[in-house]
Amino acid sequence: MSDLDVDRLLTELTLQEKASLTSGSDFWHTTGVERLGIPRIMVSDGPHGLRAQPEEGDHLGLGGSLPATCFPTASAIASAWDPELLGRIGAALAQEARACNLSVILGPGINIKRSPLCGRNFEYFSEDPYLTGELAVGLVDGIQAHGVGTSLKHYAANNQETDRLRVDARVDERTLREIYLPAFERVVTASQPWTVMCAYNKVNGLSASENPWLLTTVLRDDFGFEGLVVSDWGAVYHRVPALVAGTDLEMPPALPHSPDAVVAAVQSGELDVAVLDARVRTVLELAAKGRHVLDLDESFDVDAHHTLAREAAARSVVLLTNDGILPLAPDTSIAVVGELARTPRYQGAGSSQVNPTRVDVILDELTARFGDVPFAAGYGVGDTGEDEALRAEAERVATQASTVVVVLGLPAADESEGFDRTHLDLPANQLATLAAVAAVNADVVVVLANGSTVVLGDVVPHARALVEAWLGGQAAGGGIVDVLTGAVNPSGKLAETVPHRLEDSSSYLGFPGDSQVVRYGEGLFVGYRGYDASHLEVAFPFGFGLSYTTFALSDLTVATHGSVADGSLGATVTVTVRNTGSVTGAEVVQVYVEDPGSSVTRPVRELGGFARVELAPGASQQVSVELGQRAFSFWSELNGRWAVEAGDFTLAVGSSSRDLPLRQTVHVDAPSLARPLARDSTLHEWMADPRGRALLEREISAGQPGAVLEPELLSVIGTMPMSTLANFGGMSLSQDRLDEVTEEWRRGADAPA
Amino acid sequence: MSDLDVDRLLTELTLQEKASLTSGSDFWHTTGVERLGIPRIMVSDGPHGLRAQPEEGDHLGLGGSLPATCFPTASAIASAWDPELLGRIGAALAQEARACNLSVILGPGINIKRSPLCGRNFEYFSEDPYLTGELAVGLVDGIQAHGVGTSLKHYAANNQETDRLRVDARVDERTLREIYLPAFERVVTASQPWTVMCAYNKVNGLSASENPWLLTTVLRDDFGFEGLVVSDWGAVYHRVPALVAGTDLEMPPALPHSPDAVVAAVQSGELDVAVLDARVRTVLELAAKGRHVLDLDESFDVDAHHTLAREAAARSVVLLTNDGILPLAPDTSIAVVGELARTPRYQGAGSSQVNPTRVDVILDELTARFGDVPFAAGYGVGDTGEDEALRAEAERVATQASTVVVVLGLPAADESEGFDRTHLDLPANQLATLAAVAAVNADVVVVLANGSTVVLGDVVPHARALVEAWLGGQAAGGGIVDVLTGAVNPSGKLAETVPHRLEDSSSYLGFPGDSQVVRYGEGLFVGYRGYDASHLEVAFPFGFGLSYTTFALSDLTVATHGSVADGSLGATVTVTVRNTGSVTGAEVVQVYVEDPGSSVTRPVRELGGFARVELAPGASQQVSVELGQRAFSFWSELNGRWAVEAGDFTLAVGSSSRDLPLRQTVHVDAPSLARPLARDSTLHEWMADPRGRALLEREISAGQPGAVLEPELLSVIGTMPMSTLANFGGMSLSQDRLDEVTEEWRRGADAPA
Repeated sequence: MSDLDVDRLLTELTLQEKASLTSGSDFWHTTGVERLGIPRIMVSDGPHGLRAQPEEGDHLGLGGSLPATCFPTASAIASAWDPELLGRIGAALAQEARACNLSVILGPGINIKRSPLCGRNFEYFSEDPYLTGELAVGLVDGIQAHGVGTSLKHYAANNQETDRLRVDARVDERTLREIYLPAFERVVTASQPWTVMCAYNKVNGLSASENPWLLTTVLRDDFGFEGLVVSDWGAVYHRVPALVAGTDLEMPPALPHSPDAVVAAVQSGELDVAVLDARVRTVLELAAKGRHVLDLDESFDVDAHHTLAREAAARSVVLLTNDGILPLAPDTSIAVVGELARTPRYQGAGSSQVNPTRVDVILDELTARFGDVPFAAGYGVGDTGEDEALRAEAERVATQASTVVVVLGLPAADESEGFDRTHLDLPANQLATLAAVAAVNADVVVVLANGSTVVLGDVVPHARALVEAWLGGQAAGGGIVDVLTGAVNPSGKLAETVPHRLEDSSSYLGFPGDSQVVRYGEGLFVGYRGYDASHLEVAFPFGFGLSYTTFALSDLTVATHGSVADGSLGATVTVTVRNTGSVTGAEVVQVYVEDPGSSVTRPVRELGGFARVELAPGASQQVSVELGQRAFSFWSELNGRWAVEAGDFTLAVGSSSRDLPLRQTVHVDAPSLARPLARDSTLHEWMADPRGRALLEREISAGQPGAVLEPELLSVIGTMPMSTLANFGGMSLSQDRLDEVTEEWRRGADAPA
Repeated sequence: MSDLDVDRLLTELTLQEKASLTSGSDFWHTTGVERLGIPRIMVSDGPHGLRAQPEEGDHLGLGGSLPATCFPTASAIASAWDPELLGRIGAALAQEARACNLSVILGPGINIKRSPLCGRNFEYFSEDPYLTGELAVGLVDGIQAHGVGTSLKHYAANNQETDRLRVDARVDERTLREIYLPAFERVVTASQPWTVMCAYNKVNGLSASENPWLLTTVLRDDFGFEGLVVSDWGAVYHRVPALVAGTDLEMPPALPHSPDAVVAAVQSGELDVAVLDARVRTVLELAAKGRHVLDLDESFDVDAHHTLAREAAARSVVLLTNDGILPLAPDTSIAVVGELARTPRYQGAGSSQVNPTRVDVILDELTARFGDVPFAAGYGVGDTGEDEALRAEAERVATQASTVVVVLGLPAADESEGFDRTHLDLPANQLATLAAVAAVNADVVVVLANGSTVVLGDVVPHARALVEAWLGGQAAGGGIVDVLTGAVNPSGKLAETVPHRLEDSSSYLGFPGDSQVVRYGEGLFVGYRGYDASHLEVAFPFGFGLSYTTFALSDLTVATHGSVADGSLGATVTVTVRNTGSVTGAEVVQVYVEDPGSSVTRPVRELGGFARVELAPGASQQVSVELGQRAFSFWSELNGRWAVEAGDFTLAVGSSSRDLPLRQTVHVDAPSLARPLARDSTLHEWMADPRGRALLEREISAGQPGAVLEPELLSVIGTMPMSTLANFGGMSLSQDRLDEVTEEWRRGADAPA
C-alpha cells in the first residue's frame, strides 16, 4: 500500500519539516510536505459511526458533521458477544470512511468500565478485558481489511471523565496488566491497528502522552506495536517529553508553538534527532498507508448500512425478564407510553456523536406492525413541570390496550463525554409513570434506552418483560420492535453487571477521586470480579440474557495441551448445546477459569473464552472453545512477568457468570515460582522446603539436643526471616552459621538429582 | 531525673562505644558503658501487663515471665471509652515495672484496626484514630507520671500479621495522615512517650526502620517527638540506613555485626558521625530518664491490682442485646454451658502474653454468687472429636435451670500475634451447641470471649442477652459476673464495628495482600467510615452499647470560637444527659463531625469528641465536649497540609455512630483553598471565578460577536485546561492571548479591592 520511500524522505526533510510532521496541520488533518509528495491525511471521530467534519466546521468537536450511519454504541453492540458482527460493522464504517476520503477512524474505545458511573461508558464495550479485546479485534479487522485505519483508544486507564485532563490514575502494575491493558495487548497483537491514541490522564504520575513506560516499554516493546501513537485531542502537555516518551503525532496542533519547540529542542541538544526521526518515520508510514484513500471516489449504500444497523440494534438487545408476554403476537392490542418512544435516544453526546442518515422511531415502528396505537408521552425529558398531567394521560392510555409498552431511559443530559454520572437511577418522573401505568394495567413491557447500567429495583416489579436496548444507534427503533415481535429472537448477553445498588460496585469508595488523583483501590476486582469476590447478589449478572427459546448444556470435556514452560499451555473445552425450546435461537456459551489454589489473590473466576451458536428447535451442536496459556495466568509481581502456577484449575461453563452448571477440574503442571531459599527467606519458607526443613531441624537439634519447633511457636514467628531470627539466639543459629547453612542448601539445589 | 551529662559523655565515648550504644546488649537490655557510668536499662513487653523475663529465660519471647497483673487487652479496655481508667491502669503497670526494675514498658499498641481479621487486633484499641489517641494518652500519662517509660507502637501502618516483616504497606499520604498516624501524633504531642517503636513492615517502599519520612519528617519534625525510636524486635534490616533514617536503638542487637558495621561506616565516611552522635544522645537521654528505676526496691499490691483489673474487666464489657433477662436476680436458677466458662480465655498469644498473678474463672465466680450451678462443657476447644456427647450433655444441663449462661469465644489458636484470621466466625461446634441449648431452654444469656470482632448472625437469634466481654484479663471472670448480676451496670461502647459479614468490611478485597505488598485501597474508609459511606447495615455499630438503665439527650448547643486562619477554630458542644431509668449508670456522649459540602471526598462522619457521664436514676447533667480545629480538618493533598474549608458543618450527637438524635449545623468561615487562576486552570475553574468568567466571556464575544458558551458544550469541555482549549481554535483565544488574559486576571487579583 505504501508508495512513500520513507528512508529517502528522512534524508530529504528539513528539521522544520520533520518537526511540523509530528503535529497535525489542523484539527482533523496530519501535516503534508508538498514538495516531497507527503500527503496530508484526514482522521475522524467515530467508533460507531463517522463524524467527518467539513473543513469549515467548528473545531470544538460538536458541530454538524457529514451524514453517516449511526451504528449501536459500543455498550450496546458488546451485548452481541459477536466479533463477526463487529467485523461487518467495521467493513461498513470503512466504506463510509472511503466515501469521504477519510484515512483513519478514531476508534474503537476499549477502556474497561471500572465504574458504571463513567460518563463515557456508552463508548466502551465491557467491564471484562477479554470480551473487550475480542470485540475490538473484530471491529479493527473489519475496518482495516478495507484499507482504512483505526485508533485504539484511550491508552490507558482513562476510566472516568471527572478531571480527565489532569487526573492521575494510580494503578498497580498487576491491575494494569490484568485488567486495563489486556484489550490493548490483544488488539495490537492480533490486528496491528494503524494507530493507538494516548489518553488525557496521567498514569502513576506521568501523563499518558509523556509516559515512556506506557508508550514504549509496554506498548512497543512488550506488545509489539508497530503503528503510530496519536495524542487524544489536547493530551500533549509538554511537547518534547511527549515526543521522547513515544507520542508520534500531536493533535490538534499547537501552532506554531509545537514545531518551533521541537526545532529548538533539537538545536539545543535537548532532543536527539534520532528520536525525532523515529517519530517522523511512523508519521510517514501512516501517511503511506492512508494516502490511497485520498484518491477514492466512492460512495456507500445508505439503505444497506441502515439494514445492518438494524440487525446490530436487535442483536444488542438483552432480554432481562420475560414471563411469557414476549414476543408480542401480531394481533396484540398495545398501547405505548414514554416520550423516548417518540423522541428516541440512540447515541451519546460528545465526540462520538453522529449525524445519522435516518432515524427509526419505536412508536412509528410499532404503528407499522400493529396499526395506530394509543400513545402517551408519560413523562417529560428534563424538568418540564408537566409530569402530573403526562402521568394521568399515560394511565388513561394504558387502559386502552391489553399490553402497554413503556419506553424508559436516561436523558441525554445524564450521560456524556465530559462528565460522569453521580447515581445509577432512572429519572424519578419516569419511574413514577411506570408505577402508575402498572397499577392500571399489569401487562407491561418495559424497554430501556441507556448508555450504561441503571439500577432496576423500581422497574422489575412493574414489568412482565424487561428489554435492555441500550443506545442502539439510528435503527434502534426497528431493531427493538423486531425483538418485541419475535422477528428477531434476542440473544444479547450483558457485557456489564447490573448491580442492586451503586454502592455495591467495588470502585464506589474510590471513584472518581479528588485533588487530581484517583486511586484504583479495588485493584483487580472490577465488574463481576468484585461482586463475585464480595459474594454480593446482583440484579443481573455479567453474561446474562434471556431468549425466546431455552438451551441445555451437557457433555463437558476439557483437554489440556502444550506446556507452561514454553508458553504453549492450552485447553480445548467442548460442550454440547441443545435448543430445548420451540423457536430458533442463539446461545453464547461462556467458559470461566477458576484458580482456587493460587498463591496470590485472584478473582473467583475470569472469562476465558466464549462461543456463540445458533440452533433450530431441537437441534444440538458440539461447541468448542479454545483457551490459551493466558487464560490460566496471572501477572506475577514478584517475577515481573505472566506466570502460571502448578495446581488444579476449574473450568466452569454456562450461560452467564452466575449460571455455570458444568464444571471440570484439570491439573496443570508448571515450573515452581518459588525463589531459592536465602538467608532472608522466612522460617515458614525454610520449613516448607524439605531440604531446608531438614537442615534447620539438624541445626536446632545440634544447638539443644531434642529441641523441636512447636507448631504454636512456628505460627507466631514463622513469618520472620531467618536472618532476623538469627539475632534472637533462641534458634541456635548465628548469622555466620546461617550463611553456611544457606550455602549448603544452595549446593544441594545445584547438585544433580 | 537525669544525672548523666550527655554533652560531656559524647566527647568521652569512643567510636566503638557509641556504635555499641545504638544496639541493645541483649534481648531486653540497652547497652551500658561501665567506665563512664552509663547504665544498662531494661525494657519489657506488655501493654496490658508486664512480661518481664528473667535473665536466663528463652529469647524467642514466649517463655515464662515473672508474674504480673494481666489487665484487659486493649480491644477490651477500649470499650470503656475512658482515658481516666486507662490512667489508673497505667499507674499500676508503672508500679509493677518499678517492682522489677524495668524502665520502659513496650506499649501501648495503637495501630488502627484496618481489618477485623488482623491477628493482633486484641492488642489494639479501635478502628477510630481519635478514640485510639485519647485512650493511649490516658495510658501513657498514667505510666510515665510514675517515672517509667512507654513505647508507642508499632509505627506505622502495621495493620496485619501476614508477612509482617516484609510486607510493603502502600498507603496514600492523606490516609496515613488522617487514619494511621493521628493517634501517634496525639500521644506524642500530649504526652511525649519516652520511646516510639518502629514497625517491622515497609511503608510505601521503605522499611519503617529505614524510612526517613516516617521517622524524621513526620515523627520528629511534624509531630515534635523528642524521645527515642527503638526498632521492633528484629525490624532493623540494614544497620546504617536505619540509623540515618532515625532509628536510635536496634533491638535485639545483631552482635557483633551491628556495632562493627556502624564503626566501619563512620570510618569509611558513609555515615556522618554527627548522625551517630544524634542517635547516641537519644540513647543516653533515655538511660538518664530510666536509670532511677534500677535502684528501686519496691513491690506492688497484688490484691489491689487484681481488684483494679476486675473493675477494668467489668468496664470492658459491652452489652449488645438484652430483652430484660439481665441483670440476673440473686435467686435466679442458672446453669452454665461452655468450656470457656471453666477454662477461661482472657488474653491473646504472642509477645503480650502475661504470666498472671491469679485468674478468675467465670464458673467459680457464678458458683460463688448462685451456689453450685449445673455445668456442661458443651464443646471442646479445638477438635476434640467429642462434640456430640458434649452437646447432649449441654442440652441436659440446660433443662436443669431457668436461665442458661452460655460462654462462647475464640480458641487461642484462632487469634495471635504472628498470623491473621481468615474468617470472623465462632467455631461451628460452639454455634451448634448454642442452638441446641436454646432449643431446649430459650432463656439463654450468651457471654463472648474474643479478642477481635466476630460475626453474630448465628448467636443473636438464640440469646435473650448478649454480653461481649472481649479478652478481659485475669479478672475477667469476676468482672463479667459483676455485670451479669448487676453489681456493675455495663457502660461499655464498641470501639470497633460488628459487621454482618466479613465481606462488608471495606478492606476485604485488599487484605492482607500478597507478593509482599498490601495496598490500602479503601483509603480513609476504615471501620465505620466504610460502612457509613457504603450505606451498609451493620450488626452493631461503632460506639454502641446498652446499659441496665436508659438515657435521654436534649438541649444541644454548639458554639464555635477562634478562627481557621490562626489555627484556633474550636467548638463547644453542650448537651444535657438524663438517666431516665431506674438504676445508676453511665453514658458516653459521642460527637461526630460531618462536612457534607467538602470539595474532597470525606467520610460521612468522624468522631470528634466524647464524654462519659455517670448519673443516678432521674438525674441529669449538662455535658460539654470541646472540639479543636483538627475535628473540622482534612489533609489537603493539593496543599500538603491540614485544611478547613469554609462551609456548613453538622455536629451530630448521640450514643453511637448510628444513633445520633441531636444535630446542629454551624457555618465555618475559612480562607479559600482555591489556587489562583492560571493558563492550565480548567474552563470550569475560570467560569467559577467571577472575574475569570467575565474575562473569558469578553474574549469569546470579541472573537465572534454574540457567541456564548452553551451549558451543554461547557459540560463536555469544561474539564479542559484553557491551555488545551487554546489549541482548539474555537475558543477564539490563542496561546499568546491566553497568557495576556491570565496576566490581566492576576493583576486584578493583586490589586487592592
